Amino acid sequence: MMERRERRYAILAEGWFANRHAKTAHGLLRYGRDEVVAVLDSTQAGKTTLDVRADLRRKAPIVSTLREALEYDPTSLLVGLAPPGGRLPGEWMRMLREAAEAGLEIVNGLHQRLAPELPGAEVWDVREPPKDIPLFSGAGFDVEPKIVHTVGTSSAIGKMTATLEMERTARDAGLRSEFVATGQTGIIISGWGICVDAVVSDFTAGAAEQLVLEAARREPDLILVEGQGSLGHPAYSGVTLSLMHGSCPDCLVLCTDAAREEVFPRIPTPELPRLIHLYEEVAALVKPAPVVAVSANTSALAEAAARDYLQQISRETGLPACDPVRFGAEPILEAALASPKTSPETS
Amino acid sequence: MMERRERRYAILAEGWFANRHAKTAHGLLRYGRDEVVAVLDSTQAGKTTLDVRADLRRKAPIVSTLREALEYDPTSLLVGLAPPGGRLPGEWMRMLREAAEAGLEIVNGLHQRLAPELPGAEVWDVREPPKDIPLFSGAGFDVEPKIVHTVGTSSAIGKMTATLEMERTARDAGLRSEFVATGQTGIIISGWGICVDAVVSDFTAGAAEQLVLEAARREPDLILVEGQGSLGHPAYSGVTLSLMHGSCPDCLVLCTDAAREEVFPRIPTPELPRLIHLYEEVAALVKPAPVVAVSANTSALAEAAARDYLQQISRETGLPACDPVRFGAEPILEAALASPKTSPETS
Repeated sequence: MMERRERRYAILAEGWFANRHAKTAHGLLRYGRDEVVAVLDSTQAGKTTLDVRADLRRKAPIVSTLREALEYDPTSLLVGLAPPGGRLPGEWMRMLREAAEAGLEIVNGLHQRLAPELPGAEVWDVREPPKDIPLFSGAGFDVEPKIVHTVGTSSAIGKMTATLEMERTARDAGLRSEFVATGQTGIIISGWGICVDAVVSDFTAGAAEQLVLEAARREPDLILVEGQGSLGHPAYSGVTLSLMHGSCPDCLVLCTDAAREEVFPRIPTPELPRLIHLYEEVAALVKPAPVVAVSANTSALAEAAARDYLQQISRETGLPACDPVRFGAEPILEAALASPKTSPETS
Repeated sequence: MMERRERRYAILAEGWFANRHAKTAHGLLRYGRDEVVAVLDSTQAGKTTLDVRADLRRKAPIVSTLREALEYDPTSLLVGLAPPGGRLPGEWMRMLREAAEAGLEIVNGLHQRLAPELPGAEVWDVREPPKDIPLFSGAGFDVEPKIVHTVGTSSAIGKMTATLEMERTARDAGLRSEFVATGQTGIIISGWGICVDAVVSDFTAGAAEQLVLEAARREPDLILVEGQGSLGHPAYSGVTLSLMHGSCPDCLVLCTDAAREEVFPRIPTPELPRLIHLYEEVAALVKPAPVVAVSANTSALAEAAARDYLQQISRETGLPACDPVRFGAEPILEAALASPKTSPETS
């Protein structure tokens, strides 16, 4: 999905909206470009989104039934959360069919594809990659705007959030930036992108390059590419590296989490200076991309401990370190803006 | 395809058998476990495979027609080469249908899948991955036999050949080794494997792990995993890394080619010591795997120059270096055998 269109969302989150697993719904409210007109969760009905979680930033009514949600005139119904067991229960499928018959687009962020199960309905299976992704070509080397890419000490460590906070900070500073989404939640938030881990591995770097080329066509000042996985995560390191080489970044931001001790069972989180060195060295095999800042999720720490932790990272790495959600993304953005464009010929 | 069965091959190589692009056909003759009973190429008919290329090691008659090939009682017909333009011409498709009707299995190494085009026929689309590949689990960390993995300075640089030469040398030395094929030619040669670059990227490391687990069930002394791409190849580095982390190697063999100056347009081949260091450091994020030897394709050099080149590599890297096709794979195999088993806990 490379085009972007305007949407007015109703979010299907029955029984789940207050739950931390509802991260796609929460992400859409916190960072989304599109309007959210209603949330469907009968267990929270009558409240607003801000009553449930004040940090969601946008207020929308929570309702009990699809009929009530339709009164807010949505264009699209988001299925943002898989129920336990993975597949959608019959009751939800009936509701989706009803929504489709009422003219709504079904936007589906689950692994399970819904287009085949809802014939005739307008379905956006967000994880389904485009059919015609080419191999990496090298055209990404010549993209004009600066490209910033978030990488991580592990998977699910805050790369998307850091990237979105940078985008918000850039926008507030009057910069036009393009957030390049590479996973389902980011894609729903920004309205376009490719779920790179769903692409056949031969074409994953090509997918990343196509995303950057598309972002460049919109002539932003800055391109911000959401990272995936980690160079040291045995299950996902290939996705990480395809994305890092394919998106042709000029600089990197390393994301970490104060509370994360393991990357994978038996594999401890590496020391930051070692990992920073490796990201830079591996990037430079193709095109130099220095790590310019560290973004840390410090939500597990009290505020004073969080500030100590960030100072310690700064001392260890010699880089600005901040928690963009808690203290703002300005230091990361500044470091990225100060870093030069690079090319394969930069030494 | 994880099972292995016995095959007697006829190879369809019409107009192409003498061509260097016929590498799947040549690989099957040079290294294959299965018998080759006939080659179909009317432009070379009457000769034998050894008349066309002495280095193919196995003698088989070259014939003009499918009918003649059938007289040698093949079980399978290999389509080992795509004609210019990519898709098979109607004439070939008719021949494949005829072969299928005569009871032959069609073995297809092309990107184009043939099962949907030959309904009712027995077709092995070698590049089609299994449907049920799991995520990487970590079970590969506990495989008992030593795992050796070939990596490269670039793609198509001799990793498969080096791995197969190691296997042959190991067999000659009385060792039971399992060659783990990860690309179409290797799979046709060994009769099983998964084309890892055709796997959805989220599952590529899991595919590599499943291959190693399957090889271990056969209780060999040594598992030899064919590498793909290169850590520094922008289009394929993700496949390379998924394979390196997913196959849980205990040591690595770096493959290079004396004639290869570029990895990709604008990206020169990195210095060997730098690349060796990076492969080791990135492997060690998950599980240590030292580079124990360098395998070089020196076919572009005269013999004296080749020996000088190998000595120079040895001096630069401090490792044994040899051209396994030209001078034998013994030094590589010895270095691999001398290297210890490792685990994520090895420091």
